[in-house]
Amino acid sequence: MSKHVITPPGEDFPRWYQDVIQKAELADNGPVRGTMVIRPYGYAIWEQMQQAMDRRIKAAGAKNAYFPLFIPESYLTREAEHVEGFSPELAVVTHAGGKTLEEPAVVRPTSETVIGEYMAKWIQSYRDLPLLLNQWANVVRWELRPRLFLRTSEFLWQEGHTAHATEEDARLYAKHIHEEVYAPFMRNELAMPVVLGRKTARERFAGATNTLTCEGMMGDGKALQMGTSHELGQNFARAFEMDFLTESNERELAWTTSWGTSTRMVGGLIMCHGDDAGLRVPPKIAPIQVLVMVVKDGDGVGEAARGIVDELLDAGVRAELDDRDTAFGRRAVDAELKGIPVRVEVGPRDLAEGSVTIARRIAGGKTSVPLAGVAQAVADALSTDHDALYADALQRRDARMTSVTTLDEAAEAAATGWATIPWASVGPEGEAKLAESAITVRCLVLPDGSVPRSEDEDDVLAVVARAY
Amino acid sequence: MSKHVITPPGEDFPRWYQDVIQKAELADNGPVRGTMVIRPYGYAIWEQMQQAMDRRIKAAGAKNAYFPLFIPESYLTREAEHVEGFSPELAVVTHAGGKTLEEPAVVRPTSETVIGEYMAKWIQSYRDLPLLLNQWANVVRWELRPRLFLRTSEFLWQEGHTAHATEEDARLYAKHIHEEVYAPFMRNELAMPVVLGRKTARERFAGATNTLTCEGMMGDGKALQMGTSHELGQNFARAFEMDFLTESNERELAWTTSWGTSTRMVGGLIMCHGDDAGLRVPPKIAPIQVLVMVVKDGDGVGEAARGIVDELLDAGVRAELDDRDTAFGRRAVDAELKGIPVRVEVGPRDLAEGSVTIARRIAGGKTSVPLAGVAQAVADALSTDHDALYADALQRRDARMTSVTTLDEAAEAAATGWATIPWASVGPEGEAKLAESAITVRCLVLPDGSVPRSEDEDDVLAVVARAY
Repeated sequence: MSKHVITPPGEDFPRWYQDVIQKAELADNGPVRGTMVIRPYGYAIWEQMQQAMDRRIKAAGAKNAYFPLFIPESYLTREAEHVEGFSPELAVVTHAGGKTLEEPAVVRPTSETVIGEYMAKWIQSYRDLPLLLNQWANVVRWELRPRLFLRTSEFLWQEGHTAHATEEDARLYAKHIHEEVYAPFMRNELAMPVVLGRKTARERFAGATNTLTCEGMMGDGKALQMGTSHELGQNFARAFEMDFLTESNERELAWTTSWGTSTRMVGGLIMCHGDDAGLRVPPKIAPIQVLVMVVKDGDGVGEAARGIVDELLDAGVRAELDDRDTAFGRRAVDAELKGIPVRVEVGPRDLAEGSVTIARRIAGGKTSVPLAGVAQAVADALSTDHDALYADALQRRDARMTSVTTLDEAAEAAATGWATIPWASVGPEGEAKLAESAITVRCLVLPDGSVPRSEDEDDVLAVVARAY
Repeated sequence: MSKHVITPPGEDFPRWYQDVIQKAELADNGPVRGTMVIRPYGYAIWEQMQQAMDRRIKAAGAKNAYFPLFIPESYLTREAEHVEGFSPELAVVTHAGGKTLEEPAVVRPTSETVIGEYMAKWIQSYRDLPLLLNQWANVVRWELRPRLFLRTSEFLWQEGHTAHATEEDARLYAKHIHEEVYAPFMRNELAMPVVLGRKTARERFAGATNTLTCEGMMGDGKALQMGTSHELGQNFARAFEMDFLTESNERELAWTTSWGTSTRMVGGLIMCHGDDAGLRVPPKIAPIQVLVMVVKDGDGVGEAARGIVDELLDAGVRAELDDRDTAFGRRAVDAELKGIPVRVEVGPRDLAEGSVTIARRIAGGKTSVPLAGVAQAVADALSTDHDALYADALQRRDARMTSVTTLDEAAEAAATGWATIPWASVGPEGEAKLAESAITVRCLVLPDGSVPRSEDEDDVLAVVARAY
């Protein structure tokens, strides 16, 4: 019914993406180049993501804190690779309080440096380690080719920062975040079958010794980096003199990690699950799981609809009433655009027979359900919808993933999907060559799907693709 | 026991405040002048406040959204009073992405202007009204005399922004936020007996036609503005061409409101409830309501303590285990400093007799409680502690509030507390005179404690005080 509301994704995927964002009222472009206004429905999705991610991060032992937006320019320059990586993207405050600042303040592009400075203060001995912090904040990286949610000059994210007594402990924590926090969040809440791997040296975070990544396949076969977890070695500890007294009373530098996920995940969600009719929101993070719609008021319809909303809310379902007086068809299209998993349509005719209609956004189709069976039908729908979304995405990922052996084959496969190719056949030179066609090594994996501990392990495969 | 850990508040209140913040590990000064690092325990208190406030704001019908950090300089200048009020405090980004910006971007000091721009886009007709938005964000106002939590160059807050079809509707919503969201939050969650009133023209928000305020009395008798709700008339609607089609098909300007509370409330909490031993956190927003302490491990003590934590967590109490191997006395002082309402001390001797010791931070004293009675004793303690904190603060407020009739008496009373004086005896001139001694009219109230609808109503009283 909403065929002509948005551009079909098969016709023009970028245009479809923009249409969905606009018509589902997710976001708008901000007034300053590359910035974004996140509208209430888009923000409600982000809030659901935040809550679920925050629970997982806290379960991993990290505590939330907040560090300043402004970082002295001199901090950035202390870690050579870091400043080189971020310099072109920095926004700088030169004037404040009516005066020129003595030292310009950089608007944080990420907080390794300022957090490094404070961790160094707070860490005295091995008893203070590990120190596990996380921050929910806005960061700024100037974008030349901004795209809503995917690349914006300001975005919202969480950034975890931890310090450890040993390299091994830091390595295991970065891995824990990657495999036990990010991956399960993306699979279980976002219904996305992400591929886990390690980045090549070329693709690593500026200042990291190792970067682990979760890569998602979008509806057009391109890849999106959904979250990364970095081992920073002793690079930042050295730059900020973060040392500690060991049990044997010696001074040693700490080992640090950092890890982040952002509002970019909202873009990933749209492009992974959206279809011709708009967005499809996975039930576990849907701000509105069920929309109870008054088809036409009168004959106790409004009352019955409110009763169903209350029953669902009591059962812990995020339900909302739609009793607006605009045309029902238009409201239904709007609910489809917004990707609300389940609609309960309450009309006078059905109600007279003691039933309502349940319309499914993800499975599709409509069924008549007796009033007494609504709560159960909704619960069943939400749980099968999650699995269906995941299965859809997994099927696409498998169908578009090609195993190849040469760079030419890899480039060909990357035109429509992802290729896996032995890393030994690519190497830094092959990687540079692929980059000329805007194809990147998304990550390195082992044949069994696990994450290699180094680039040099036998059998390491490169996953190559075009990417957002 | 912690007498010598911090400066007594009666000796040097500002020093005591700093000591509490440092020793309870609430916050640190940031590296850029006036900025603040909120440490995990301070942030956990803020998170509890946020959650409770967010629930209340959502119940008032407002939806969260997110608007950009950077505002084009030209937006600020559109509302004359607004730009005049904020100009001296602005931080300005002049360089970004390696270039000088064509138009400098202001780091938001508040978001009336940018939100005004987007509301104007989104509002077409009376059907789109009221539009009720809220944003959780960081804002920047350059501070010459920064003080942690109270006045920092960057702070965290929520800012609500709403648009209405009529002046009356806007007035009622600003009042609803003031009386039904902010005041009950401060009284029921923060245990603070705030005084509600309206600001004088001199003290109004820049661009507002009316500002409503919640004022709290601190431990030294000074006032702290804890939250404000503004009627903005049509000032911002006019500046941003926010008009709408009425039911009778005419174009009219909308009426807007804005309202905010910030991390400043953490400062208010400290100064309202703190005492010689440190912080006292109201149970409803205490991140740790109960600390279950292993006095000395062995003989099943650790196990019993963990069992109590689990039992309390199951009962919905925010309980934490303290089984660190530092000296018990030191840990107890730390828990007092942090203001944790209840400690359950589990030691081998008590445990052998089937009991534990409950130590109360707010009521004071220790009691021996049989193991089976812990959950009930904790529940009782938390509920009476809230009332006790409120009663303490109310008693101080009443004791230090003096009714006077002349400016000289008002100035004298304001040396140690608050004075109420007929507004007719003060007026703008008296207000200016008091300001010379750093005494301000905190708000105007009616004798029955309600909020006057204008300065000119009969019997209007001015509450005057020194303030943070």
